[in-house]
Amino acid sequence: MPNISDKGRAMPASPIRKLVPYAEEAKRRGRKVYHLNIGQPDIETPEVALNALRNFSLKVIEYSHSAGNESYRRKLAGYYQSKGIDIEYTDLLITTGGSEAVLFAFMTCLNPGDEVITPEPFYANYNGFATTAGIKIVPVTSNIEDDFALPEIEEIEKKIGPRTKAIMICNPNNPTGYLYSEEELLKLRDIVKKHDLYLFSDEVYREFCYDNEHHHSAMYLEGIEQNAIMMDSVSKRYSECGVRIGALVTKNKEVISTALKFAQARLSPPGLGQIIGEASLDTPPEYFSAVYDEYIARRNFMVDALNKIPGVYCPKPKGAFYTVVRLPVDDADKFAQWILEDFEYNNQTVMVAPASGFYSTPGLGKNEVRIAYVLKLDDLRAAMETLAEALKVYPGRKD
Amino acid sequence: MPNISDKGRAMPASPIRKLVPYAEEAKRRGRKVYHLNIGQPDIETPEVALNALRNFSLKVIEYSHSAGNESYRRKLAGYYQSKGIDIEYTDLLITTGGSEAVLFAFMTCLNPGDEVITPEPFYANYNGFATTAGIKIVPVTSNIEDDFALPEIEEIEKKIGPRTKAIMICNPNNPTGYLYSEEELLKLRDIVKKHDLYLFSDEVYREFCYDNEHHHSAMYLEGIEQNAIMMDSVSKRYSECGVRIGALVTKNKEVISTALKFAQARLSPPGLGQIIGEASLDTPPEYFSAVYDEYIARRNFMVDALNKIPGVYCPKPKGAFYTVVRLPVDDADKFAQWILEDFEYNNQTVMVAPASGFYSTPGLGKNEVRIAYVLKLDDLRAAMETLAEALKVYPGRKD
Repeated sequence: MPNISDKGRAMPASPIRKLVPYAEEAKRRGRKVYHLNIGQPDIETPEVALNALRNFSLKVIEYSHSAGNESYRRKLAGYYQSKGIDIEYTDLLITTGGSEAVLFAFMTCLNPGDEVITPEPFYANYNGFATTAGIKIVPVTSNIEDDFALPEIEEIEKKIGPRTKAIMICNPNNPTGYLYSEEELLKLRDIVKKHDLYLFSDEVYREFCYDNEHHHSAMYLEGIEQNAIMMDSVSKRYSECGVRIGALVTKNKEVISTALKFAQARLSPPGLGQIIGEASLDTPPEYFSAVYDEYIARRNFMVDALNKIPGVYCPKPKGAFYTVVRLPVDDADKFAQWILEDFEYNNQTVMVAPASGFYSTPGLGKNEVRIAYVLKLDDLRAAMETLAEALKVYPGRKD
Repeated sequence: MPNISDKGRAMPASPIRKLVPYAEEAKRRGRKVYHLNIGQPDIETPEVALNALRNFSLKVIEYSHSAGNESYRRKLAGYYQSKGIDIEYTDLLITTGGSEAVLFAFMTCLNPGDEVITPEPFYANYNGFATTAGIKIVPVTSNIEDDFALPEIEEIEKKIGPRTKAIMICNPNNPTGYLYSEEELLKLRDIVKKHDLYLFSDEVYREFCYDNEHHHSAMYLEGIEQNAIMMDSVSKRYSECGVRIGALVTKNKEVISTALKFAQARLSPPGLGQIIGEASLDTPPEYFSAVYDEYIARRNFMVDALNKIPGVYCPKPKGAFYTVVRLPVDDADKFAQWILEDFEYNNQTVMVAPASGFYSTPGLGKNEVRIAYVLKLDDLRAAMETLAEALKVYPGRKD
């Protein structure tokens, strides 16, 4: 039997999914499992999008343009323009989820062995795309004590070496929920300009900003128009994770034309998802205000509930729908497995994502977990109660 | 401005698309352009699939399992079992088109610098996936004089070196339409076994076999169950190119579990496409017999019409819906551009794919084009007349 590849061997397992067998076993034993581990919102997809599907009238589901349907690209460019991002429809490619936008950016901009600096904890699947592209992610640590603010620029600059090609942020951040300020973005602009790096900005949570804070897109930054590359997705904005539609956006024409060659090899992005994505741009404002109110209520409830549990610390994130929480435990990986395997409260238990998988510096995040507030308030309440009870009796408790 | 990557620079432009600007210009000048250049069938998608879309009743379009919905995988495994392929649903992953199945196979099985031997002419996008994966495609030339039969095994064996990890076929073949015989498959089995290589078999045209010939899947081959990896797609079988749903199929558990890690990084294959794909498995047999009759009629008409044009030679392919044709021209790239730019017949012209892009040995295929018989008979007739007239007056004619 021939060997598999070194990349295949090096490919990281998903930290979000490694506990799935324990959750399945808990369910088999009749337990209710609250999934706080994955960013799959329970929010309904906009009616206008679902109606576009029901009214599908074409007779043949054909390939689309490799860059995406022109009508969709034009309308999506209009959305960005309405957010103050000055681009044309030719400055973007429709991708198969935000995932493919990240992969195309890595493949287009970096050679194998090149490096991307990113604050850790970071979205764990970046590791998978880095392995695919043969590049290296260099972490610069952000801290729960600072609510995961951007690390000092000096700390970032220390990491810049001859193979550094890009700095990457996720804003608002997955997994921390941190929303980068305009000041932080300007600091990034300066360092990117000084060292002539790409600035990759994953903005798939761009609409999820709370407490009257504004989102500062990397695409706003003056003087680095040729360096800034934005990744986006419809997954979270419209609760359409399953359609696999994203976008790669940049005013750098060479990056677009090169990424298009990767796009042409895979022919086209999903056609039905594009129909959904295009229709979703007509989602009425009331949808977003209702979603906003819902997430605010969930976040406020959850952050309060968590901070009331003795020994727990949870920052109050201003964006996305995640938070990284410090727990009074010896090892969050062990705790996350234990709560599924050996614990129940009113026949319920909870699945969380151990934060260690979001750090690449070994040993970090050992007493942290990522929690996604993607469940209804009643479910969140039950989940928080369960978590509190579990922490009372967990054998590896450590304050 | 930072540089793009070497891979980006090396990424081949699609030979099918490089003439698109000339076709667009011809259309702007009011000409009817018959598209024989791309495998986009005009056949209607099955009603049962379109109905599944219209009846979509879920409220949230969620992520699916990274390997694809279990209900779809189980049903798809049933389809393969009905074709005599002895697999379980855990022996396959649903992919984003056949494209992703090829990319996953390359990433899972080959290290950068490793080699895949494949008969040329071959599907040009293999080059793109090879560039992405950093691997090398080593061609072994098949000839129009032999109707593009499998090259002699000795010729293949000569290409095997220390970096060879796989042999790849597309069966029935794109671009040649050649259907490999059982005898040829058995020869491949022997060489794969002898050298412990993977056998990649792209079978996306597996249902398009004519003249009472049977399809011989790589998955039938005894003794290389751990070496055989099949790529498949719904695109052509059900005329659903746009949904981007394919499959990677192998009894090699290590390949499946490794490819699943690549699949997890991109979260899930397109959700709506999976609904279409699953529903399509209930397509009634009458659909396929009507499609079969249509393609047989088109092929027979087209091959006859081509061979009646002085100086033209067209094999009679037994599968898929392509043929590679020899034309009496100096350079098929020039001819294909000229016919769009400088020729019209009854205000019509024709777009074909120069075959040079399907060879990787420089200079081969210079007087060949790939033609896809994906148009209605009346359109094909007009296209063949136009081609015949064009060849009478083409300034670079060379018999």
